[in-house]
Amino acid sequence: MALKLYGLPMSTNTTRVMICLHEKEVDFELVPVNVFTAEHKQPPFLSKNPFGLIPVLQDGELILFESRAITAYVAEKFKETGPDLIRHKDAKEGAVVKVWTEVEAHYYEPAVSPIIYEHFVAPFQGKEPDKSVIDTNVEKLKKVLDVYEEKLSSTKYLAGEFYSLADLCHVSETHYLMQTPCASMINERPHVKAWWEDISSRPAFSKVEPGMTFGKNQE
Amino acid sequence: MALKLYGLPMSTNTTRVMICLHEKEVDFELVPVNVFTAEHKQPPFLSKNPFGLIPVLQDGELILFESRAITAYVAEKFKETGPDLIRHKDAKEGAVVKVWTEVEAHYYEPAVSPIIYEHFVAPFQGKEPDKSVIDTNVEKLKKVLDVYEEKLSSTKYLAGEFYSLADLCHVSETHYLMQTPCASMINERPHVKAWWEDISSRPAFSKVEPGMTFGKNQE
Repeated sequence: MALKLYGLPMSTNTTRVMICLHEKEVDFELVPVNVFTAEHKQPPFLSKNPFGLIPVLQDGELILFESRAITAYVAEKFKETGPDLIRHKDAKEGAVVKVWTEVEAHYYEPAVSPIIYEHFVAPFQGKEPDKSVIDTNVEKLKKVLDVYEEKLSSTKYLAGEFYSLADLCHVSETHYLMQTPCASMINERPHVKAWWEDISSRPAFSKVEPGMTFGKNQE
Repeated sequence: MALKLYGLPMSTNTTRVMICLHEKEVDFELVPVNVFTAEHKQPPFLSKNPFGLIPVLQDGELILFESRAITAYVAEKFKETGPDLIRHKDAKEGAVVKVWTEVEAHYYEPAVSPIIYEHFVAPFQGKEPDKSVIDTNVEKLKKVLDVYEEKLSSTKYLAGEFYSLADLCHVSETHYLMQTPCASMINERPHVKAWWEDISSRPAFSKVEPGMTFGKNQE
């Protein structure tokens, strides 16, 4: 039975999982969740994720939520297929992958997400983007990207010389960030720019990118 | 060579790792970092963690930061010692552990941390606790604890009938939360209360608890 992924192809948390499934060449069915009618805030969806958020992965009787937990599960279950995203043969490399996956979750995404929100979601809701929110998070993001630039000047990818879950987790939100004026923050840091060009040109992302239309709908 | 943990015994992120090391009965050396002189914001500490935060674990040449990545490494490296915190023999149970570890990081801690800050750190800095910050986060925490109460009415621990990293990750910040008026939020939910009494009475935490003196210093 194919895996079922409940979510939306324009959601960064959903596409984070989709990219991972494509890297692993795993068949899955995307089950759309209508967030505009708040389907995710009502039963039966709440029985899958009591926090009412997408995505949710269903693998037989197993139901998982939280995109980074799902990608870790997919990377582990299909560790012999496609790239080794968790370095399962080397505990130390695997630990470094976890460190930089945490960095994405706790430093990078919390800065990028409000910038994306103000540029794409606020206008969609008929609101002016809040410049002070953008400015605050640009400052946070600068500090994070300075660390990335330093790190990526010594290794090709965040966790070492290998593409891993740590890099993969960044792709979805960076795709939207690159459609904002903040793209310059990536482009003016040569090692970060080269890294982004590398991880965004992988075939797994090209299968997901056409569905990431949030920004394009607003143009 | 014993593991070296750079941090402070009053820091919730440091004690998260210490509890895990004690559960696994692993010898380690705690190397104090003087955060009051901003030792963690300067070299040589920045060469260990470029984000300038404690804790950092050093295992020979391997240097790791981010407390949840460190606990995952310790739980994996010492999986045959003490309780199996990651359910390494069952991929599905292991995945559920990851889900609820993410819940702690993305829902629970972000609500608890500002409450602790306002109750303990603000007075230490000579400031009045910001009631609006507390109120906002109490509302967030209520919703999270309602989900926990429901979950813990069907399983003894967050990820199932077994104590795991998902439970362990909550202990440090909840210890401080229980010294605030918000303790009632735990105590008035019978399954959450029973769970807290269980996970806070484990011997591994009793080795760490005497050093968690932040609140006590202010009394």
